[in-house]
Amino acid sequence: MDGRLLAEIRDRYACRAFLPDGVDDGDLRLVLEAGRLAPSAFGLEPWRFVVVDAERRAAVEHAAFAQPAVVSAPLLVAIAALVDALHPDSDYVRARFVAEARGEPIDGIEAAYRAFYRPERIAAWAIGQCNFAAAHMLLQATHLGLASCPVGGFDDALLAQALGLPAGETPALLIALGHCAHAQPERLRKPL
Amino acid sequence: MDGRLLAEIRDRYACRAFLPDGVDDGDLRLVLEAGRLAPSAFGLEPWRFVVVDAERRAAVEHAAFAQPAVVSAPLLVAIAALVDALHPDSDYVRARFVAEARGEPIDGIEAAYRAFYRPERIAAWAIGQCNFAAAHMLLQATHLGLASCPVGGFDDALLAQALGLPAGETPALLIALGHCAHAQPERLRKPL
Repeated sequence: MDGRLLAEIRDRYACRAFLPDGVDDGDLRLVLEAGRLAPSAFGLEPWRFVVVDAERRAAVEHAAFAQPAVVSAPLLVAIAALVDALHPDSDYVRARFVAEARGEPIDGIEAAYRAFYRPERIAAWAIGQCNFAAAHMLLQATHLGLASCPVGGFDDALLAQALGLPAGETPALLIALGHCAHAQPERLRKPL
Repeated sequence: MDGRLLAEIRDRYACRAFLPDGVDDGDLRLVLEAGRLAPSAFGLEPWRFVVVDAERRAAVEHAAFAQPAVVSAPLLVAIAALVDALHPDSDYVRARFVAEARGEPIDGIEAAYRAFYRPERIAAWAIGQCNFAAAHMLLQATHLGLASCPVGGFDDALLAQALGLPAGETPALLIALGHCAHAQPERLRKPL
């Protein structure tokens, strides 16, 4: 078995400063598509991807404490976690279960989800689910020859406002994309 | 740009029933390696991978409600989230920051982490971080021609006990691996 994927996994790193060169629309679309196809518990896909436009850019940078990766990146994609939509009685959840059941009854998955659902922990859970989509997007960026940086450090309320998120959504992660101004640093990981 | 990675992303699906054929040790090692190299916030890698051995198998299946994917899979890997180790004063956190800083001072990342850390939400956060590793492992399995199923439905306390997790760790996800007994179902996703 060849190690193509592992080579890409090894090539991914957190770029801390980007060059001004932009990202093609076609590449952006492939990154979003990789995120869209990510797995999620109960098939709920509790995410929405927001491409940060010029108008919102300054406010987003401010909400992320003007970190160098965020300020220098030519492209920022935010992953918003759906929270209110995850209530077991919501139209959103019902629609996902109906799709997931492929014509079979949804009683089983619905009962399992009701037993799982806790309002006080659903936001943190949805944010965690967004990491499945983020991991796909980061690898797809590497595959396309793009550098990336996942950014989880931001003021939640400020970023929600900067992104214009509706009530019931919360920012999960920012992904900075572009071409890196520095080489990949030595890889650091715990041993297996 | 070719779409090799996207093809693998499209080929990944949740296998609900596995054939008895086993998984090579070499393949298992590559799956674990893909997880090991996953990104994590603050570089904390708050996970540990536990390969379920024959002795613990029955208890793990019971803790996961004997779901067909879990019972039929020839191989189960659990991802345990490190929780107590994430206290800002822990040796674990300090060691990760020292490694991440590559010889530079750790004051900056340490202060950022202290500002971020909330004991009441750290377990949910650590579990969410484990999804980065899980996404890598699922894609690596697909790359190796293996089927997989991420399983988040289990009794936390029972599974922790079945896996023999030390206090301060909590189960994040089970990954069932093997060869699938059914074809990939039609893909269902929200549109972009």
